[in-house]
Amino acid sequence: MRVAILAHGKFPHDAKTAVGVLRYGQQDVAAVLDRETAGNRVADHLPDVQDAPVVEGIEEIPGDIDQLIVGIAPIGGGLNDSWRHDINGAIQRGADIAAGLHYFLSEDQELATLADEYGVELRDVRKPPADLGVADGSARNLDAEVVLTVGTDCSTGKMTTTWSLLEAARERGWDAAVVPTGQTGVMVDGSGIVVDRTISDFTAGAVERMIEQRADHDYLFVEGQGSIVHPAYSGVTLSILHGSMPDSLVLCHETGREAIRKYESFPIPQPAEVADLYESVARPLHETEVVAGSLNTRFVETDAGAREAVEEFAAAIDAPATDPVRFDPDEVLDAL
Amino acid sequence: MRVAILAHGKFPHDAKTAVGVLRYGQQDVAAVLDRETAGNRVADHLPDVQDAPVVEGIEEIPGDIDQLIVGIAPIGGGLNDSWRHDINGAIQRGADIAAGLHYFLSEDQELATLADEYGVELRDVRKPPADLGVADGSARNLDAEVVLTVGTDCSTGKMTTTWSLLEAARERGWDAAVVPTGQTGVMVDGSGIVVDRTISDFTAGAVERMIEQRADHDYLFVEGQGSIVHPAYSGVTLSILHGSMPDSLVLCHETGREAIRKYESFPIPQPAEVADLYESVARPLHETEVVAGSLNTRFVETDAGAREAVEEFAAAIDAPATDPVRFDPDEVLDAL
Repeated sequence: MRVAILAHGKFPHDAKTAVGVLRYGQQDVAAVLDRETAGNRVADHLPDVQDAPVVEGIEEIPGDIDQLIVGIAPIGGGLNDSWRHDINGAIQRGADIAAGLHYFLSEDQELATLADEYGVELRDVRKPPADLGVADGSARNLDAEVVLTVGTDCSTGKMTTTWSLLEAARERGWDAAVVPTGQTGVMVDGSGIVVDRTISDFTAGAVERMIEQRADHDYLFVEGQGSIVHPAYSGVTLSILHGSMPDSLVLCHETGREAIRKYESFPIPQPAEVADLYESVARPLHETEVVAGSLNTRFVETDAGAREAVEEFAAAIDAPATDPVRFDPDEVLDAL
Repeated sequence: MRVAILAHGKFPHDAKTAVGVLRYGQQDVAAVLDRETAGNRVADHLPDVQDAPVVEGIEEIPGDIDQLIVGIAPIGGGLNDSWRHDINGAIQRGADIAAGLHYFLSEDQELATLADEYGVELRDVRKPPADLGVADGSARNLDAEVVLTVGTDCSTGKMTTTWSLLEAARERGWDAAVVPTGQTGVMVDGSGIVVDRTISDFTAGAVERMIEQRADHDYLFVEGQGSIVHPAYSGVTLSILHGSMPDSLVLCHETGREAIRKYESFPIPQPAEVADLYESVARPLHETEVVAGSLNTRFVETDAGAREAVEEFAAAIDAPATDPVRFDPDEVLDAL
């Protein structure tokens, strides 16, 4: 699938979805749309991902595209009116639109009418399927080895770790798939459910359904969300843990982070304590274990410093660890 | 407020909301509508609740009513067409309608038009407020003593225990309020949010908002839902635990129940183990303790047998316990 990614004013540092698709997506990226960095190439900013030109607008994209991905989400999740020109243009070129905004494109009268006229799809990835139901606990009985990334907090690298594991597993020839649970993951994979937007009674059921749909693979890497010790999102975290019934957990942590992000009065317990909590709360339903750690060392300047932090983390949780972005995820795969 | 309760074919045994309102509601119940038991009185079936006549239909209700409560919910939560006559009649008599169905009365064209014509409200208690947001952890900082009922499973008596505690606390002259989180509780109290219908990202936030709105009371009894070891609902349970930041927990269990109801392949751990789990997962955010137990002994024939079961339960969880329906909730209040 050939796509363009809209990221006006935000590429690359505030464009998590755009970067996720460039790094891990199977899509062929024709261009990134960003008025501020137009004229550059992706490689000028991100040397280790798929390269593409950065252009001003939809008119400058070379050749046909199948889909325009809205690769940024402003605070509040609204649709910025300055994007309409490009979205309309993409529709008129026959491209589907995929977006992860709180504001649903499919409920926008202007866009819906135009999409109808040109026979394209407006895909709001945050909109949950209408037919979700409660979990029945069946993910416990599957043959696939289910590996869930869990965190000491939000934004510790669960998504990145999940996709790193997927890529490395495939390189080893393993039959592996991901279970995407967040908007970027769903965009990257082209399937999945943004579970934090589901009705809370159905959240575990949504995860269970995705597991079952992928159960014919040998390895399933489930993208975790939030943290069991997060004041706002712990319910989503636990729904994923109990909905996916993982055989193994990978604990994601950012080195040096001491408090929950944006909830600074809530200290993060020691990683080993968080690992124990995940294991304890999973055990009555399905025995599982933190088999490895994934440490985010992006704020550590030197590789030597990062290595040291990883070693300390591994000792603290008594399991092998790595930083899968800075180094590689082999320690984690070896532990499975 | 003077109300009638629709419970066709289900009163009293399959009419949880009807019985909840009769037992604990502040509403004055003018009549129960049940074609099958019409001609009886409530007292013929339930000697220990507010009495009222059971009548065939809306025409037989003596005097004016302010609200018709739909006090039953069929499997699937649909609107039974045989109820329309009574609902329409209530609207035409100027009564609001309150329902906890999955099917929203306010989105039914016929009912919405009629309600508009007569200037009455269609109150769908399962419909969450549109302006919910994420929790900010602020429930931790309130002066009120927050007491949450938690369970080893669904349907162990959390709602009943919560309202028993409220009534007994008020009898002692304590300044107390409830935080209703389920549809029956919301009907009984006339306020609250059915939290298992909220978007999972906002579930803890919904609980937190209710706590804050009631924070001027000395005691808040929060109605728990599900169980931390439930394969489908544990996320809702944890969202309530972290959203309400309770100072004390009351563990609700049904004597003799060994597996999760309707999930028979999932054994319930020992109650003491479940108590430990609740305390462990709360601790990183807000220290709390299981201070008492509430044992449902409805299937124990004799009071002597029930006393024995309660004593065993108390010993097992190392805290005072009672069956608040069969005996009284004083042991729990004394423990606070």
